Amino acid sequence: MLPMKSGALSLPRNLLLLAICLPAVTRAQQTSPSPSPTPTLYSQETISGLRKLQQAAFTSDYALRQVAHLCNNIGPRLSGSPQAQKAVEYVAAEMKALGLDVRIEKVMVPHWVRGEETAALLEFPGQAPDTTQKLVLTALGGSVATPANGVTAEVVVVKDFEELQTLPAETVRGNIVVFNHAYDKAMAAQGRGGEAYGDAVAYRSDAPSAAARMGAVAALIRSVGSADYRLPHTGQTKYSEDAPKIPAGALAAEDAELVGNLAAQGKLRMRLVLTPQQFADVESFNVVADLKGSTDPEQVVIVSGHLDSWDLGTGAIDDAAGVAVSMETLNLVKKAGLRPRRTLRMIAWMNEENGLRGGTTYAQDHKTEMPNHFAAIETDGGAGHPVGMNLKAKPEVKTWLGPIAKVLQSSGAGLLNLVEHTGADVSPMEEFGVPTFHPMQDSRFYFEYHHTAADTFDKIDPHHLQENAAVVAVMAYGLANLEQALPR
Amino acid sequence: MLPMKSGALSLPRNLLLLAICLPAVTRAQQTSPSPSPTPTLYSQETISGLRKLQQAAFTSDYALRQVAHLCNNIGPRLSGSPQAQKAVEYVAAEMKALGLDVRIEKVMVPHWVRGEETAALLEFPGQAPDTTQKLVLTALGGSVATPANGVTAEVVVVKDFEELQTLPAETVRGNIVVFNHAYDKAMAAQGRGGEAYGDAVAYRSDAPSAAARMGAVAALIRSVGSADYRLPHTGQTKYSEDAPKIPAGALAAEDAELVGNLAAQGKLRMRLVLTPQQFADVESFNVVADLKGSTDPEQVVIVSGHLDSWDLGTGAIDDAAGVAVSMETLNLVKKAGLRPRRTLRMIAWMNEENGLRGGTTYAQDHKTEMPNHFAAIETDGGAGHPVGMNLKAKPEVKTWLGPIAKVLQSSGAGLLNLVEHTGADVSPMEEFGVPTFHPMQDSRFYFEYHHTAADTFDKIDPHHLQENAAVVAVMAYGLANLEQALPR
Repeated sequence: MLPMKSGALSLPRNLLLLAICLPAVTRAQQTSPSPSPTPTLYSQETISGLRKLQQAAFTSDYALRQVAHLCNNIGPRLSGSPQAQKAVEYVAAEMKALGLDVRIEKVMVPHWVRGEETAALLEFPGQAPDTTQKLVLTALGGSVATPANGVTAEVVVVKDFEELQTLPAETVRGNIVVFNHAYDKAMAAQGRGGEAYGDAVAYRSDAPSAAARMGAVAALIRSVGSADYRLPHTGQTKYSEDAPKIPAGALAAEDAELVGNLAAQGKLRMRLVLTPQQFADVESFNVVADLKGSTDPEQVVIVSGHLDSWDLGTGAIDDAAGVAVSMETLNLVKKAGLRPRRTLRMIAWMNEENGLRGGTTYAQDHKTEMPNHFAAIETDGGAGHPVGMNLKAKPEVKTWLGPIAKVLQSSGAGLLNLVEHTGADVSPMEEFGVPTFHPMQDSRFYFEYHHTAADTFDKIDPHHLQENAAVVAVMAYGLANLEQALPR
Repeated sequence: MLPMKSGALSLPRNLLLLAICLPAVTRAQQTSPSPSPTPTLYSQETISGLRKLQQAAFTSDYALRQVAHLCNNIGPRLSGSPQAQKAVEYVAAEMKALGLDVRIEKVMVPHWVRGEETAALLEFPGQAPDTTQKLVLTALGGSVATPANGVTAEVVVVKDFEELQTLPAETVRGNIVVFNHAYDKAMAAQGRGGEAYGDAVAYRSDAPSAAARMGAVAALIRSVGSADYRLPHTGQTKYSEDAPKIPAGALAAEDAELVGNLAAQGKLRMRLVLTPQQFADVESFNVVADLKGSTDPEQVVIVSGHLDSWDLGTGAIDDAAGVAVSMETLNLVKKAGLRPRRTLRMIAWMNEENGLRGGTTYAQDHKTEMPNHFAAIETDGGAGHPVGMNLKAKPEVKTWLGPIAKVLQSSGAGLLNLVEHTGADVSPMEEFGVPTFHPMQDSRFYFEYHHTAADTFDKIDPHHLQENAAVVAVMAYGLANLEQALPR
């Protein structure tokens, strides 16, 4: 998942809006700027189909079995890895088994492979003779390597970019800079995990180049996440053109605290070994599976998640869950014997984590078809309890979706929330005017596991996963059967 | 900390008892079997000293600074390590700085050093070509090593000892046995962490020999702990005389789940590398610091914690906290200008974790003085909020301690709870009739961090640490000034 500034949950105002909009679509339209009020948005048959899908989602274990297979049997799925390729083949085969039109669409992806990663304080105040303090860390995605035997240097600790700027260049030059900038756990506990992430992730992106500009030989950030279990969080870093590329890693929260504490007492010397390798781009694929529409097959409603994952865990919440609820949507519609007006398209994106090549390549390859891309849903925020749907669309779209939200409200997921960002992979379609959607989920725990070794199958709550499948299936089927075109 | 079967918290019944006992010591004594009812247990001066110590504990940062130094500046303190030796020197120097009579008492301790520890599934159902699944694990303390390049074998998964016994010997022979027996998190969430630990820790102790008896080449348990953050928990294993010693480790909970899930689907092959080394016993020390009693200096009240720790984390909750509140007790008494009737003795025990040599050596070396060991307190359950004191003593001791409990009740820590086990290090004194004590603490989170890399300084809540210091200081000073001898 990429940075989101918008909060995942922000309930009271929306609840109020919903209470106004839902029971009276036509009345709401009188006050909306919608140019073409329509007498019927959804047929009775469509509404009954939505209810059927919703109920079916709550008794199906299909999505859970998909997550289990992707995580347990295939494992971590970093772009360019054999596991990512196996996942492409697996999802394509599963979709074919449902009788869908399936193809894999070529995407050239980065191929970065993690190496050894160790760090230790060799010198620190009060240490016992012949001892070091081991530090727990992980390389940031895209990091260049240290020499095989590591780099040894003094340590400079700052709390943020501003403090770094106050330091004389000679304090930084030749040293390792540690950015001890904490993820705001209090904010996350309020359900504003996305905002807390957005604040801290700036260090993951920009800290290495900021340090390199001042002559640092390596940069370490404090992990961007809320867990205090000696668990480092990886994620992609971004080297600026105007600075040397230096090795970049993320310390576990505890280790950033330790280094900060000891640096305040005296001189620290660290040995850092990070030996990742960056290879040439390799061929990979988005998996695209269509359930053809009955009356408007050229029009497409996308349901999607990303198939690649980071390599430390097995990518259960990020994002096997998103792929699984998307696969489940087509499974449920098929099993229910429903045939949408428009084409329902499942896409398992490749390379969300370290390049977004799947999303950008798709939008490019299909740009002439974008006017027929009716809507695009992506699930990439885990499988926490959903309370509704975030949407990036014209404000009046909220009103048009009222009847769908009313169905979802019966399982507590009826909120519609206008946001600036939905899913990263569908974002390249936004410039073509395609309305995009993302389930609005309980994000309180997501950032404890996100991008860590602990993003594993057991983190999926089976019932919450079913709830997410219900939200995506109902929204997708509703959009695919909307009697009118959405304003865009 | 060693296994405790008794729950750390069990409130309602004790609250009731307390309500009866506290206001009326003499009335309670009429119904107790105490042979010698006494008119005065504590002088007014003693009670006023207790209140003074309690208040002082809540504003002192001395204990917190001790934990910080032991964890951050010295680091992990496994018996036989340079850090353990440094910790001995540090605590002795700090106690001398308070003007106490300090000595270090020789203890021969095991010297086990962790090596490389990796594991991977080489073969499992559905795997991508040329891939393995990495497993997160750690060697159990005392484990023998695999060959340097590891052992590769098929995997047999059982949920408990009973299931192992149902297997034919040829199913186990030559293979790696995984015991996927889960720590009872629901029980721990009720504050019964000690009981949950007692149940699961049987596997840490006995599973390797159980598997070895049936011909296994290695044994892995599911980590004994409640955290789900891909965090393995170490701890001492116990080889039986009647079985070959085989390499023994603990998988993170997630990895035990993964192996269990995949084993149900087909054949698994694992490569396991554990290369710890067991060296000859080495000399180490208990640190003993006395604040001499004014009228009965030969009588001793012990306050203690253990100075050694496991090597994965820095041993903050297990057990720098216990050492720190014991040091703080003497600091507070000194600073308050109080002089106890009996000697207050701080002991920082060596080798609780993997041998208990400190506790057993002390009891042996001082056995002729045991009649003068008036009471012994150990804190070895972290620094969670204390609600009172567990005691292993004659039942009527509860009544005798009522006035102390009444003082502690003002900070919510007035419970007195008779138990079967208090601290491991003081337990060898019990056979000499010495009453032993351990703070009764909130244990809900203790087993998330216990024996893991995440047992670090940041896990200490400064206020809760002060509360624990208050409980220990008040109880110790009260015992040291009791006007009569406790029944024993």
